[in-house]
Amino acid sequence: MATAAETRAMRRAVELAARGLGHTSPNPVVGCVILDAAGEIAGEGWHRRAGGPHAEVHALRAAGERARGGTALVTLEPCNHTGRTGPCAQALIAAGVARVVYAVADPTPTATGGAATLRAAGVEVEGGLLDEEAAAGNEAWLTSVRHGRPFVLWKYAATLDGRSAAADGTSRWITSPESRADVHRLRAQADAVLVGSGTARADDPQLAARTGDGEVTQPLRVVLDTEGTAVRPGARVLDGTAPTLIAVGPDAGTALPAGLAEVVRLPRATDGRGLDLGALLAALYDRGVRSVLLEGGPTLAGAFLAAGAVDKVVGYLAPVLLGEGPAALAGAGITTITQALRLDVAETTRIGPDLRITAVPVPPAIESDTDQHREN
Amino acid sequence: MATAAETRAMRRAVELAARGLGHTSPNPVVGCVILDAAGEIAGEGWHRRAGGPHAEVHALRAAGERARGGTALVTLEPCNHTGRTGPCAQALIAAGVARVVYAVADPTPTATGGAATLRAAGVEVEGGLLDEEAAAGNEAWLTSVRHGRPFVLWKYAATLDGRSAAADGTSRWITSPESRADVHRLRAQADAVLVGSGTARADDPQLAARTGDGEVTQPLRVVLDTEGTAVRPGARVLDGTAPTLIAVGPDAGTALPAGLAEVVRLPRATDGRGLDLGALLAALYDRGVRSVLLEGGPTLAGAFLAAGAVDKVVGYLAPVLLGEGPAALAGAGITTITQALRLDVAETTRIGPDLRITAVPVPPAIESDTDQHREN
Ligand SMILES: NC(=O)c1ccc[n+]([C@@H]2O[C@H](COP(=O)([O-])OP(=O)(O)OC[C@H]3O[C@@H](n4cnc5c(N)ncnc54)[C@H](OP(=O)(O)O)[C@@H]3O)[C@@H](O)[C@H]2O)c1
Ligand SMILES: NC(=O)c1ccc[n+]([C@@H]2O[C@H](COP(=O)([O-])OP(=O)(O)OC[C@H]3O[C@@H](n4cnc5c(N)ncnc54)[C@H](OP(=O)(O)O)[C@@H]3O)[C@@H](O)[C@H]2O)c1
Repeated sequence: MATAAETRAMRRAVELAARGLGHTSPNPVVGCVILDAAGEIAGEGWHRRAGGPHAEVHALRAAGERARGGTALVTLEPCNHTGRTGPCAQALIAAGVARVVYAVADPTPTATGGAATLRAAGVEVEGGLLDEEAAAGNEAWLTSVRHGRPFVLWKYAATLDGRSAAADGTSRWITSPESRADVHRLRAQADAVLVGSGTARADDPQLAARTGDGEVTQPLRVVLDTEGTAVRPGARVLDGTAPTLIAVGPDAGTALPAGLAEVVRLPRATDGRGLDLGALLAALYDRGVRSVLLEGGPTLAGAFLAAGAVDKVVGYLAPVLLGEGPAALAGAGITTITQALRLDVAETTRIGPDLRITAVPVPPAIESDTDQHREN
Repeated sequence: MATAAETRAMRRAVELAARGLGHTSPNPVVGCVILDAAGEIAGEGWHRRAGGPHAEVHALRAAGERARGGTALVTLEPCNHTGRTGPCAQALIAAGVARVVYAVADPTPTATGGAATLRAAGVEVEGGLLDEEAAAGNEAWLTSVRHGRPFVLWKYAATLDGRSAAADGTSRWITSPESRADVHRLRAQADAVLVGSGTARADDPQLAARTGDGEVTQPLRVVLDTEGTAVRPGARVLDGTAPTLIAVGPDAGTALPAGLAEVVRLPRATDGRGLDLGALLAALYDRGVRSVLLEGGPTLAGAFLAAGAVDKVVGYLAPVLLGEGPAALAGAGITTITQALRLDVAETTRIGPDLRITAVPVPPAIESDTDQHREN
């Protein structure tokens, strides 16, 4: 059983872990707090960036000799493998830590086994403390491990009546400066930001994370441009502020000057609507991308939703009514109400004058069934 | 200055007033608490129905002799006129009440002056205690006095992407049983429930308030049916559970059997889109209607919004995505983003799995101006 001081320390470790969001892929975010033998905080650390020391190593360094006989609180089971940095289980043993409490077990085949190694060395080990909080903080990475593809967060902005622009196409700005700042935070936490050729053509977006924070790791900017005609020299996604990947079809010509963007050829989708999304996600995964912010537009979002490839939805609803204009979502392949994609609302927050709704798709097979019985 | 006991009693009076919602039009809702000379609650009352005794009379009856030398807390300035029931100012004086504290001053020319009458009789009078809470509880009536037309609440139900039905027209049920029960509560509080001929044709709605509460005063059911062809014998709005009014154009033929509904002829709208909404609201006002629940559909809601005749919006957003299907709002006459109808979100609540958003239109002249400067 964890003590109250250990629970507090784990909560702190979860907070520390979150500082790594956007910087650690393909690794998870991890936070660690070392308590000395008297139960006082002796050191803190978090995994700051892929290739850098793990959270435990940072925390052990900060704790120094005070780690001996102490307790380590780690948001993820300490790793057992020798990757770019040594295995953390060994580092904890070497530092003389007497007890290790972790939140979430490591699900990866290569890293797992840290708990067993620690136990074999006589360290007391306990798992599961604040595992829900810690798992929520590592949601993208855990989802990517489970599905073998990046976690996909679809973000949209719309009016209360579901419009993403007015009848004449104008949309600057439906949502508030506060909401737009929040989107930049999402970009900074994502490994890649994705739009379709329609949005590239209509908006010429830059897709960089502008957070006013110097420590941003810019996400990979990705445009799905089957014909290779939407992103042209001079486009803002080619401005060099962040790396850019243009996904094109097998037979697309590209007139892009070399060096401005990586051009990747992907097969076409079997339904003929653009590029194969599975192939796209695999290509991104291969490049270390574990979380994707899907920024739309409506057509691409519809294709992702129809493919069951959206893990979470964040909608910014502006308290505005339009009554005309393009919808925030199109072509999800739903024709009748029983096929509707149902979600669970996880959170609703005011962002300036707007509402931010965070929701998670409910597996349709389960939900539509219960629903039929209950509602009709 | 009101005492703490008086403030508590006024809060209670506001609660009591709310019990009258839906039953009192064309009168306001009013609540009253009498404290005896020692400051203890001696009597409570609220205006239960139009034509019945006012709140003060109920409370004075309950207090009996204990009212003498006591204090009356009333949510609205006591009336001074002799309407269907005697003036409350006189009743308070006759009962020997020493002090009267009211929340909101009576804005109607015929009823006003109660405070002066009380003062002239030597009663200590104070106004404004909890006036915001009390005014919110009397929102519909106060708005109707100010504008000389009924208060209009537009209610809609939609998916997160703003659809009110799937592509094939199916919509049973987008929102949850909890949301539908909440709509019945809104109906019960309204004096009239309004739909256009499109909804009457598509859904054949009953439009009665089914709250499971025996004390419901059924709202007047109103259908705007310019040609007099949407509501036919056998329609559920003609089922007798509540009175029904069919508004038709000047030249409509009606094949409705007499006695099932009142048929009212109205001029056509000057823009040719159905009936004149000003004339409709005036006709309803003349019948004592002070609050209207506008249930749509999208076309009629668009016309009301375009006419500036919506005082409040309640949206039930189901955590569902469709990507196709009719929108919740149409034809509000907005073509570009600077004309967008902006609102202030007053409240967001979870209703079962759904979100209920309550918002109030912001006068466009003010809002779009600031917005232009700030956002572009
Ligand atoms: N409110 C918001 O949150 C938001 C966000 C973004 C955009 N928008 C607005 O959306 C509008 C653009 O809409 P849109 O729907 O045309 O843009 P989009 O979704 O960005 O682009 C759609 C295009 O992407 C290409 N694509 C490639 N692979 C695809 C696949 N597997 N599935 C679907 N599409 C694929 C297709 O064209 P090719 O195959 O020819 O390449 C398709 O036409 C703009 O006006 C923009 O302002 C709004
Ligand atoms: N999700 C929701 O909250 C909700 C609520 C209600 C309805 N609905 C759906 O909406 C659909 C019906 O849509 P709708 O737009 O056709 O229905 P509607 O708004 O109920 O009816 C529109 C019709 O009302 C008549 N009308 C009379 N005076 C008018 C005026 N001043 N302005 C505008 N219209 C006036 C017009 O026809 P005439 O002039 O020919 O009479 C007009 O075509 C149905 O499928 C229904 O299920 C959804």
